[in-house]
Amino acid sequence: MEISALQKERANYQPKLPIALQGAVKVKEGALTQSVDNQEDIKKLFPNTYGMPLVEFEPATEFNNAKMNVGVILSGGQAPGGHNVISGLFDEIKKLNPENRLFGFLMGPGGLVDHKYLEITAENLQAYRNTGGFDMIGSGRTKLEKEEQFEKGLEIIRKLDIKAIVIIGGDDSNTNACVLAEYYAAKKYGVQVIGCPKTIDGDLKNDQIETSFGFDTATKTYSELIGNIERDCNSARKYWHFIKLMGRSASHIALECALQTQPNICLISEEIEAKDMSLNAIVEDIAKTVAYRANQGNNFGVVLIPEGLIEFIPSIGRLIQELNDLLAAHGDEYLNLDKVAQREYILAHLSSENKSTFETLPEGVARQLSLDRDPHGNVQVSLIETEKLISEMVGVKLDQWKKEGKYNGKFSPLHHFFGYEGRCAAPSNFDADYCYALGSSAAQLIANGKTGYMAIVKNTIAGTDKWLAGGVPITMMMNMEKRNGEMKPVIRKALVELNGAPFKAFVAQREKWAKETCYVYPGPIQYWGASSVCDITTKTLFLEQNK
Amino acid sequence: MEISALQKERANYQPKLPIALQGAVKVKEGALTQSVDNQEDIKKLFPNTYGMPLVEFEPATEFNNAKMNVGVILSGGQAPGGHNVISGLFDEIKKLNPENRLFGFLMGPGGLVDHKYLEITAENLQAYRNTGGFDMIGSGRTKLEKEEQFEKGLEIIRKLDIKAIVIIGGDDSNTNACVLAEYYAAKKYGVQVIGCPKTIDGDLKNDQIETSFGFDTATKTYSELIGNIERDCNSARKYWHFIKLMGRSASHIALECALQTQPNICLISEEIEAKDMSLNAIVEDIAKTVAYRANQGNNFGVVLIPEGLIEFIPSIGRLIQELNDLLAAHGDEYLNLDKVAQREYILAHLSSENKSTFETLPEGVARQLSLDRDPHGNVQVSLIETEKLISEMVGVKLDQWKKEGKYNGKFSPLHHFFGYEGRCAAPSNFDADYCYALGSSAAQLIANGKTGYMAIVKNTIAGTDKWLAGGVPITMMMNMEKRNGEMKPVIRKALVELNGAPFKAFVAQREKWAKETCYVYPGPIQYWGASSVCDITTKTLFLEQNK
Repeated sequence: MEISALQKERANYQPKLPIALQGAVKVKEGALTQSVDNQEDIKKLFPNTYGMPLVEFEPATEFNNAKMNVGVILSGGQAPGGHNVISGLFDEIKKLNPENRLFGFLMGPGGLVDHKYLEITAENLQAYRNTGGFDMIGSGRTKLEKEEQFEKGLEIIRKLDIKAIVIIGGDDSNTNACVLAEYYAAKKYGVQVIGCPKTIDGDLKNDQIETSFGFDTATKTYSELIGNIERDCNSARKYWHFIKLMGRSASHIALECALQTQPNICLISEEIEAKDMSLNAIVEDIAKTVAYRANQGNNFGVVLIPEGLIEFIPSIGRLIQELNDLLAAHGDEYLNLDKVAQREYILAHLSSENKSTFETLPEGVARQLSLDRDPHGNVQVSLIETEKLISEMVGVKLDQWKKEGKYNGKFSPLHHFFGYEGRCAAPSNFDADYCYALGSSAAQLIANGKTGYMAIVKNTIAGTDKWLAGGVPITMMMNMEKRNGEMKPVIRKALVELNGAPFKAFVAQREKWAKETCYVYPGPIQYWGASSVCDITTKTLFLEQNK
Repeated sequence: MEISALQKERANYQPKLPIALQGAVKVKEGALTQSVDNQEDIKKLFPNTYGMPLVEFEPATEFNNAKMNVGVILSGGQAPGGHNVISGLFDEIKKLNPENRLFGFLMGPGGLVDHKYLEITAENLQAYRNTGGFDMIGSGRTKLEKEEQFEKGLEIIRKLDIKAIVIIGGDDSNTNACVLAEYYAAKKYGVQVIGCPKTIDGDLKNDQIETSFGFDTATKTYSELIGNIERDCNSARKYWHFIKLMGRSASHIALECALQTQPNICLISEEIEAKDMSLNAIVEDIAKTVAYRANQGNNFGVVLIPEGLIEFIPSIGRLIQELNDLLAAHGDEYLNLDKVAQREYILAHLSSENKSTFETLPEGVARQLSLDRDPHGNVQVSLIETEKLISEMVGVKLDQWKKEGKYNGKFSPLHHFFGYEGRCAAPSNFDADYCYALGSSAAQLIANGKTGYMAIVKNTIAGTDKWLAGGVPITMMMNMEKRNGEMKPVIRKALVELNGAPFKAFVAQREKWAKETCYVYPGPIQYWGASSVCDITTKTLFLEQNK
């Protein structure tokens, strides 16, 4: 296998650990915990894993030589650092007892159910240390939620003499980890389950989890690209770049990239929802900035758009809801009409508010909303190229203003979507260390008999040796939410908080960024050199934790 | 102005110079030169700048204290390192004589004609050392080719007491630099003109020019992204990524990125043209690889597509030619038809070969070819999203094979276009040094009275101190080519040579890359750390020069 020069050098990087995890480790238990909401419901659903104490690790004098085999699973979308969680876990269980073995279940949670696994050894792990991607054991989206899956998994757990399963995933996967932990505890199977907070989206965080891994590297990679485009934009001075950024629903990625690169405009879905802004209002805001800059002789700019935007625009949400209902009720009748008649049919049946929203949409988007449906009959919002939709509407608005004599510039939009470019980047020093510490913590939680916990590392804006490692009961982060019409216990998803420090920092500067040209060019992630360059955290993490 | 942590550190980087340029410099003249072809024609057109000797710099004991002001122009598309050419030029003319002044003409060659300029000083230059972009003085695409422009430029040259103009640009801009040099020489104005080889496309190279600046950084940036996508692809194992890469016509960028990242497929326009491959044959080749991999259980892959591809497919070229002629002759008649009738009209009038090519095209592309025309009535090839066109046709082919029982996989394509992400990246160490040496060489060519030369640096795969700096008469690289129906003297554009070492290295491995998964993940450009990581050249340069 041919590997790159960087990968060769990077393989030698020894991730740094918090002091508590550098030698022998003991557990300090904190106060008993409560779930963030719906305590009675959560307690009833998780009688064996509810209310446990917070755990923090401390240096000890005596080694715990726990004999334990461990299974590890990567769940959901890729995030930089997954291989380092595995490395940290591997090194820590071997430190505990060299006879301990680590098994990686293949292609996600399905590997546990289907009994597909790979034993992870010092040899086969070497090539994956400090690398991006989940390619060592693969990932998958199978949901662990049925008893038959749990029982099927138990067979291979017994066969391999596995003491605990570590599930590396986002909010849903960690919720499922807790359900599995509860099930095995209730059945007294003696199998522990530990979670690890992964997602580039940054929406798995709370009082206990300062950040999910991968967010640091992914946002730095996107910011490198946005900065490069800004520099191009500021050199050519003739294009407006509309850049859509991955991020299922929350706008953390867009916000972080904005703080790093200072674009002219960045939309934040959570703000748009809170203000009940219409698509037209968003477009008008952007067009105003384009017109202002044109007036200054600057027919160029950069706009960041979070991927999940469309679903956060309340008026579009209401329109989609009514369209779904309308077409579910009258689908056959509607399908037999030609395109023009379909449009008329829809306009005739929509309520007046939704009708006027529908009428403002460019034809292609309107057709997409009213024609292409998923197997459940729902509008496929993710197919809408939001960045093109918005730039097209801005163009229409500007043409209108030009006719009215209110605008006299040139508007040439270009479009980009960044997502896959960052999910598997080689982890930054921060993510390399953070993930390694998470894996190491997970091993210690297992060695200390914990289940239903998530591994955590805190105080992450300090130097690595000052980081605090431990565990948090997953139930502590849960509340009840409606999912597919049913109330379910879930880890509360962290959206961008409009009174949080990162958003406030953005708001304080955005008008200046819109009018002037304040681009910052972060450049590519550096692994060596000045600490001020290669060890910086995200702006989001710094602003949130620097209290 | 807020600048990034990387930019702060990078500002302190002192680019390395070849030994000959480190202290006092003298000129060693080589043999007199001939143009690469059409010697008589070129000699007639350039009586004052034809046949001059090659120039190489050597260390000297006595300093030449030439008193000279210089003007510098950035021409055409951005390329990483432009600011370092300016820095090298600035530092060298100040070394010659601290009273020397440097003026940057704004927004490209137009700045010379319109008398828009900025004096470059140690202070305002500091923030741009080792940075990407052309934002310090901007760039533009105005062509310097008319006498009135030359005379208008002379006014400001006289006013600022400028001895020489340095034009940083691609093949066309350097051709124009030579025309300007010849004009000023013929008129005995005593104004020198020097060129510098810039383009990320890599198509300005020959026996004298080993590489154009920016190619190194841009291809490393694209390779970082391609590698990240490959890692994602190999982790998720469910997508085929079709990645289009910038590069006006030559496929050097795609080839270099393929050598760096080892994708499953990389199309090379020059090969497709040489083999007279049809679009259908290209599609069938790709579909075969998709089917082969599906058969191995690998429903994923990465395909690189050079931006200029479409124009290199001979059958498409012939079709476009006939469509242009047909619609020029019968435009009005045609325009009044509806879409269906237009298609029938075209099919009825095309020759049988072009008709069958037209029929293989997806409907959207066929319509684009037959409807959207530029102001000169020509098909707008650049509007065609080649990556989507090809993946769509591959999908159709696979569906057909599925029906015939020849294929039983899943094909989910995703699309990317990388271009703007790399044009303004912060220059790699190679480009930072190379550009600085080019700027320094340009200053010495001026100090030694040369005009109509391009600054060059050779032996670039050796350590920087072993680099050889000098100049080459621009006429040496010229021949006569047809442009817009007229024979013109131009610098011969370097396409990918099918018997060149880089292409051969690619061919030797591509079958293996197609069948197996041999991805290499280069990661982001590093500026500090092991020389094996931060000082590597491109594979193209190494393979071409390592004779």
